[in-house]
Amino acid sequence: MDIENAYITLPKGFIANGVHAGLKPNGNPDLGFIGSDRPASVAGVYTKNLVKGHSLTRSISIIKKQETVRGIIINSGNANACVGEMGEEDAKSMASAVAKELNVDSDDILTASTGVIGSRLPLDKILSAIPGLVNNASSSEETGHLAERAIMTTDTQPKEVAATVNIFGKEITIAAIAKGSGMIHPNLATMISVFTTDANIKQDVLQSMISDNVKDTYNRVSVDGDTSVCDMVVIMANSASETPEITMGSEEYETFKEAFHALCFDLAKMIASDGEGASKLVEVEVVGAKTAQDAYLCVLSICRSPLCKTAIFGQDANCGRFITALGYSGADIDPDKISMFLSGLPVYEKGVALPFDEEVAKEKLSEHDILIRVELNDGEYNDRMWTCDFTYDYVKINASYRS
Amino acid sequence: MDIENAYITLPKGFIANGVHAGLKPNGNPDLGFIGSDRPASVAGVYTKNLVKGHSLTRSISIIKKQETVRGIIINSGNANACVGEMGEEDAKSMASAVAKELNVDSDDILTASTGVIGSRLPLDKILSAIPGLVNNASSSEETGHLAERAIMTTDTQPKEVAATVNIFGKEITIAAIAKGSGMIHPNLATMISVFTTDANIKQDVLQSMISDNVKDTYNRVSVDGDTSVCDMVVIMANSASETPEITMGSEEYETFKEAFHALCFDLAKMIASDGEGASKLVEVEVVGAKTAQDAYLCVLSICRSPLCKTAIFGQDANCGRFITALGYSGADIDPDKISMFLSGLPVYEKGVALPFDEEVAKEKLSEHDILIRVELNDGEYNDRMWTCDFTYDYVKINASYRS
Repeated sequence: MDIENAYITLPKGFIANGVHAGLKPNGNPDLGFIGSDRPASVAGVYTKNLVKGHSLTRSISIIKKQETVRGIIINSGNANACVGEMGEEDAKSMASAVAKELNVDSDDILTASTGVIGSRLPLDKILSAIPGLVNNASSSEETGHLAERAIMTTDTQPKEVAATVNIFGKEITIAAIAKGSGMIHPNLATMISVFTTDANIKQDVLQSMISDNVKDTYNRVSVDGDTSVCDMVVIMANSASETPEITMGSEEYETFKEAFHALCFDLAKMIASDGEGASKLVEVEVVGAKTAQDAYLCVLSICRSPLCKTAIFGQDANCGRFITALGYSGADIDPDKISMFLSGLPVYEKGVALPFDEEVAKEKLSEHDILIRVELNDGEYNDRMWTCDFTYDYVKINASYRS
Repeated sequence: MDIENAYITLPKGFIANGVHAGLKPNGNPDLGFIGSDRPASVAGVYTKNLVKGHSLTRSISIIKKQETVRGIIINSGNANACVGEMGEEDAKSMASAVAKELNVDSDDILTASTGVIGSRLPLDKILSAIPGLVNNASSSEETGHLAERAIMTTDTQPKEVAATVNIFGKEITIAAIAKGSGMIHPNLATMISVFTTDANIKQDVLQSMISDNVKDTYNRVSVDGDTSVCDMVVIMANSASETPEITMGSEEYETFKEAFHALCFDLAKMIASDGEGASKLVEVEVVGAKTAQDAYLCVLSICRSPLCKTAIFGQDANCGRFITALGYSGADIDPDKISMFLSGLPVYEKGVALPFDEEVAKEKLSEHDILIRVELNDGEYNDRMWTCDFTYDYVKINASYRS
């Protein structure tokens, strides 16, 4: 069951906090912490970018070598990427400072950073802020929300979701936060997202579940075609619900996975909807492709096309641009079989543009949620992806991101 | 030798004209004609988009079946694409009307259309305009320039180049026009471009030359990552210079090809520089890749990245975005070996961001021409590509293209 007022500390045994350490010029929270009162099984998925931030590579190697952690520290405003060996040292120092307050091993604290690439972390500011950050962390709603505030960059809306699920006759809670909202593209749709749950699940089961779940959620969001160097989705499961272990393939596994997937789905849509400068959420659905790859190439091509995305911003039913994007997608398609619907309005049939009422099209495009449905009529494979429109504000935000 | 005041009728035996037939709402010329007074060998390269405009597919099939043509009619304001069988009929009618005025076979007249996709051509308007268009065509400078005006869409600058070359002791002239300036991306960089020359060259030699020449010129321009459905580059060689035939592999072949290539190069740069909304011309040079494909993927990735392109618009030396684009390009690169220069200023060395003077960087980025040089230090392959920045005006132009 979805929880309306969601925050990351809803699952038992988790604490969190967010403070302003001085990385963001505007005074907003920029350093967040999420911790568990006991060891939590951990699993994650990461950007496929060959260039990876130093805080991220540190977390990847920890999750590779050990099954549990005790928490994660995340800063926004600086990606801690491309600064050389000092970047690794900085990530380690950040984690050690947190570990010291908690009296745990420094490798029990994951690290994540998001923001400008190529500048060293202002480590002094971070280290000064850590004692207050960690010691005031609690399971309260207030500090839960602060952790989300601290990881946001150009996001205009916080992204927090939670649900409860009944397993073994008891209530288990899953909660998650995410940040968008630029450099968003598959492998991995660019963000940092943290899940907490009080379920009892071992690392390998958790890993299999998260890897499956991102495929049609996080990996189906594109804001601008840029895949960042800092993305990760991690989940920490601390068994504080005191329920039996959820094992691979069991009925409970399926129930939990379904709830987990629904939250991934919701967050992915929130990220697209809050894409940089976005005024609309666009869902692109392609059905009837020859292969799964063809279906994927088609949704990807439309979601990446500046011409499709500016047309949606302009509420201009310039449907030829969508057909064009399909034609150069690299997918094996037959142009003469393509039909297309714009939020339900038929605009193409078997490769030929249909006459349509411009006023009706304009009305459909004036909605916040737009659905582009493409029928390839050439096979059995489907895919869908979310994106947003391309606006003046996208250019504005990104022309002066560092200043 | 380059000719400063270039127009398409400079080579002997060619005539041209452009008129306003009524397709463009602003009253500008929208119907152009270029003809030869004798059969001209013809060759072309075309968009790789699976969806192709009807005027284009007609031209492709003509060039496939016959060695020579007598001219080409081109309209802007409507792409004559995705309208079904009627689109083929319309292209044919347009050519037949021209052929009738010239008293030649209708298959001797190529067709090209550029503009909005998915609307039928206003054939009445075009057919009414054709007698005046063709009968007033001449070899004058005025009508030569009018032909270029007629094929422009969102271009802000006409794109006309010409050169002379001495072969067999005589002067041969090559001239070319092109239109950009959106939906520009390799295979083929989206445009229509027509070359005329009074050289004596057979079709197969011409075809080999044009196919070679586009590789590192037209196919190395990206404005927005969108490959259109109407692109083509054609060349007509009418032997009006009355020189011997230029045969494959001869010394004259090399001389001619070099001049032809230089014009392709100039036009490609003009197209990038006049990309929709562009305020800057950006050259991206990648050296030291493991394979040619790796080098290509790297230049492509930067040229396609909205984040790199908005940073350049904002004159913001946000160099991490370029490294990020290399990392997700799909190229096999070693992030720790990458060095980068921003118009000569070293900003990255072996994967690590260098400190640089922000004022100097700002000054470099305030120039119109920007050079991004990436050294991969991993092999012997190089590539380079041109693009432009991503601006408010790009969004503005494309949010309301049809209206």
